[in-house]
Amino acid sequence: MGTDRARSSAAEALGTGFLVATVIGSGIMAERLAGGNGAIALLGNTLPTGAILIVLIIIFGPVSGAHLNPAVSLVMVMRGKLDAPSLVVYVVSQILGGIAGCWAAHLMFDLNMFQMSSTVRWGLGQWIAESIAAFGLVLTIFGCLANNRPAVPFAVGLYITAAYWFTASTSFANPAVTIARALSDTFAGISLAGVFPFIAAQITGAIAGALLSGWIWPKEGHD
Amino acid sequence: MGTDRARSSAAEALGTGFLVATVIGSGIMAERLAGGNGAIALLGNTLPTGAILIVLIIIFGPVSGAHLNPAVSLVMVMRGKLDAPSLVVYVVSQILGGIAGCWAAHLMFDLNMFQMSSTVRWGLGQWIAESIAAFGLVLTIFGCLANNRPAVPFAVGLYITAAYWFTASTSFANPAVTIARALSDTFAGISLAGVFPFIAAQITGAIAGALLSGWIWPKEGHD
Amino acid sequence: MGTDRARSSAAEALGTGFLVATVIGSGIMAERLAGGNGAIALLGNTLPTGAILIVLIIIFGPVSGAHLNPAVSLVMVMRGKLDAPSLVVYVVSQILGGIAGCWAAHLMFDLNMFQMSSTVRWGLGQWIAESIAAFGLVLTIFGCLANNRPAVPFAVGLYITAAYWFTASTSFANPAVTIARALSDTFAGISLAGVFPFIAAQITGAIAGALLSGWIWPKEGHD
Amino acid sequence: MGTDRARSSAAEALGTGFLVATVIGSGIMAERLAGGNGAIALLGNTLPTGAILIVLIIIFGPVSGAHLNPAVSLVMVMRGKLDAPSLVVYVVSQILGGIAGCWAAHLMFDLNMFQMSSTVRWGLGQWIAESIAAFGLVLTIFGCLANNRPAVPFAVGLYITAAYWFTASTSFANPAVTIARALSDTFAGISLAGVFPFIAAQITGAIAGALLSGWIWPKEGHD
Repeated sequence: MGTDRARSSAAEALGTGFLVATVIGSGIMAERLAGGNGAIALLGNTLPTGAILIVLIIIFGPVSGAHLNPAVSLVMVMRGKLDAPSLVVYVVSQILGGIAGCWAAHLMFDLNMFQMSSTVRWGLGQWIAESIAAFGLVLTIFGCLANNRPAVPFAVGLYITAAYWFTASTSFANPAVTIARALSDTFAGISLAGVFPFIAAQITGAIAGALLSGWIWPKEGHD
Repeated sequence: MGTDRARSSAAEALGTGFLVATVIGSGIMAERLAGGNGAIALLGNTLPTGAILIVLIIIFGPVSGAHLNPAVSLVMVMRGKLDAPSLVVYVVSQILGGIAGCWAAHLMFDLNMFQMSSTVRWGLGQWIAESIAAFGLVLTIFGCLANNRPAVPFAVGLYITAAYWFTASTSFANPAVTIARALSDTFAGISLAGVFPFIAAQITGAIAGALLSGWIWPKEGHD
Repeated sequence: MGTDRARSSAAEALGTGFLVATVIGSGIMAERLAGGNGAIALLGNTLPTGAILIVLIIIFGPVSGAHLNPAVSLVMVMRGKLDAPSLVVYVVSQILGGIAGCWAAHLMFDLNMFQMSSTVRWGLGQWIAESIAAFGLVLTIFGCLANNRPAVPFAVGLYITAAYWFTASTSFANPAVTIARALSDTFAGISLAGVFPFIAAQITGAIAGALLSGWIWPKEGHD
Repeated sequence: MGTDRARSSAAEALGTGFLVATVIGSGIMAERLAGGNGAIALLGNTLPTGAILIVLIIIFGPVSGAHLNPAVSLVMVMRGKLDAPSLVVYVVSQILGGIAGCWAAHLMFDLNMFQMSSTVRWGLGQWIAESIAAFGLVLTIFGCLANNRPAVPFAVGLYITAAYWFTASTSFANPAVTIARALSDTFAGISLAGVFPFIAAQITGAIAGALLSGWIWPKEGHD
C-alpha cells in the first residue's frame, strides 16, 4: 500500500472515528444531563454532530475526500470519482475507524467498552426516513461539487443538523456509523436486528440520489 | 418543456419539498420530544429549518435560483429577473413539491398522509407579522444580490432562523409552504381559514420589500 | 439631504429597527414559550439576535456601514471613518429606527404599543459588564476591519451571541437599543433609571476599545 | 521587548482573557438560569464558547497566531512555527490573561473575585477525554493550516463546540484555561488537585496530534 493510500485510509478511519465518538459521546453526555427531556438531549446530540462533520470534512477532505461513509464512497464509484479497489479500502477503514470511535467514547465515559445496543429501530417509517436522509445527503454533496466545491463541509454539516430532526430515524444515513452504533447501548444505539434494513435503505436512497444528481447537475456527470 | 426548464422545475419542487419536510418533520420530532415545553420545541424546529434552507439554496441556486417560495418568484418578476411564463411553472412546482414534502414527513413519522390542520392562526398581529417577515426576507435577498451574491444562502437561512422567533406567527413567509402546512395537523400546521390572509400578508410584505429594495440598492434595479 | 445620505439614514434606521424588533420580539416569544426556564428563554433570545445581526450587517454594510449602534458610530468618528455631521444623522436614525422596531414587535404580539419597562438593571457588576461588552464589540469590529473586512458581519453576530451569556447584563452594548428597550415592559426591557448608566458604560467601553485597537492593529489607524 | 512582541503578547493575553471570561461567565449565567437542567446549562455554555473562539481567532490571528493555549503554542514550536523564547512569552501571557478573564467574570456577576474551585474532575475517563480533546484540536489546526488556512477560526470554534459534548470532561483542552478555571468555584471550575493531570493529558494529546499531523499533512511539515 503506497503512502498516499495509507494516508487516505488513515483519514477515513480517523474521520469516521471522530464522527462516531461525537455521535455516541455527545449522546451519552446529552442524555445524562437532559433530565429526561428528549428534545434537549437531541439538541445536545445534534449540535456537536453537525459541528464535527464540518471540521472533519475541512481537514480530511483534501486527503481522502472525507467520505466517512460507505454509501458516499459507493456513489463516488458510480460517478467515476473513486476506483473499485479504493472503495474496499475506504469502506474497511470507515467501519474499523467507526468501531474504534465507539469504543473511545465508552472509555471516556467510564462505560464498558464492549456493548450491544438494545434500542429497537424498526419499521417502514424508519426505513423511508433513512432512504430520504441518504438521498438528500447525496444531493447535497453532488449539488455542491457541481457549483460550489468549497461549500461541501459546511453543507454536509448543516444537512445532517437538519436531518437529525426532520427524519423519524434521526438520520443515521451512514452504514459505517450504523454498524458502530450497534455496538453502543446508549442514546445513539441501534439494536443489531435493525442494522441490515437501515443499511439497505441508506444505500437505496444514496443510489437514487446519485442518479438524480446526474440529471440535475449534468456538469458533474461528465467530469 | 426544454431540459433547462425541466431542471428548474425539478429544483424548485425538490427544494420546496425538502423545505416543507423539514419544517413539518422537525416540528413533529420536536413536539414529540419536548415534553410540553414550547420554546424547546421551537428551537428544535428552528435549527433544522435554518440549516436546510442554507443547504437547499447552495445546491439549487445555480439551477433555478432556489426561490422555493412564490412570493420570492413574484418579486423576481417585478425586478426583471424571471419572466412571467416561468413564474407559473415555478409557483406550480413549489406548491406541488411542498405538498409532497408534507406527505413525506407524514410517511416517515407513521402518520396518516392526508390531514387538515386544526391550528387556528388568525388576527391582526399575525398578519402584520407575516407582512414584516416577507418584507425582511425580500430585503435580505435583494440586499445580498446587490453586493454579496454568494451570501444569499447563508443570509436567508439566518434570516428565517431569526424570524421564527421575532415574528408572532413564527414566520411562514412563503405561500407554498403555507398551503402545504395546511395539510398537516401537527406542530407546524395552519387551519385552512388562515391560509388566505397569511398569503395576502406575505405578498403585500414581499412587494413592499421589493419596492424599497429598488431604492436602497439601486444597482440591483438596473441590472 | 442627498440621496446617498438618505439611503444611509434609511439603512441605519431599518437595520436598527429590525435588530430591536428581533431582540424584543424573540424575547417575548421565548419567554411565552419557555415555561419559566430562563436559560431556554435566553437561548431563544440569543439565537435570533446573533442571526439577524449577521444578515443586517451583510445587507446594510455596503450602504451605511451598518453600525446600527451610536457607540460604534462614535468610534468610527474617532478613527476618521465617519464625519461629525453624519454622526448626528446616524445616531438619530438609529434611535428612531430602534423605537419603531420596538413598537413593531408590540404590534405583532398584540401588546400595547406604548409601554415603559419595569425591569431594574442596576449595579456595578452590570455596568462593568456593559463596558466590557462594548469594549469587546469594538475590538471585534476593528480587528476584522484591519485584516478581514468580509468577516465583520459574521464576527459581530457571533460576538453578541457570546456576550449575551458571558456578561451579567446580557450585553445590551448599544445606546440606541438600550433606549428602545426602555420602551418595552417585556423580557428584554430595562427600566428608565438604568438607561443612562448603561449608555455611559457602553460609551466608556467603546472608547477604550477604539484606543486599544489603534495600537493593536495600527494599519487600521492610518487608513 | 519590541512593539511586535508586545502586540503579540497583548493579543494572547486579551484573547485568552476573553475566552476564559466567556467560559466562566456563560457558565455562571447558564447555571443560574437553567433551573437545574444540566444539558440546558451546557448548551448555554457551549454556544458562547464556540462563538467567541471564532471571533478571537479571526481578530487576533493576524497579530499573534491566536493560539490562546499553551499546548497549541508548544506544538507550534515543535513544527517550527514559533521560536522557544516566544513560547515563554506566549505561555505567560496566556496564563495571566486567563486569570484576568476569570476575575473579570466574577466582577461582572458580583461574585468574590478570588475563589478556588471545589469541583472534583478526576479519573481515567476524564484524562483520556482531555488527551483526545487536545489531540483532535491539534489535528483541526494543522489540518486547516495545510490546505485551508482561512478556515482555522471557524474550524476551531466548531471543534470545541463538538468537544464540549463528546468528551466526558467537557473538553478543557487548554492548560492556561484549566489554570484559570481552578480559580472559579462556579459551573466551569476544576479543583486544584485535578489541574496537573488535566494539563499532562492535554500536552500528551497535543504532541501526539502534532506528530500524526506531520505524517497526514506532510506539506505543512516542511513549510
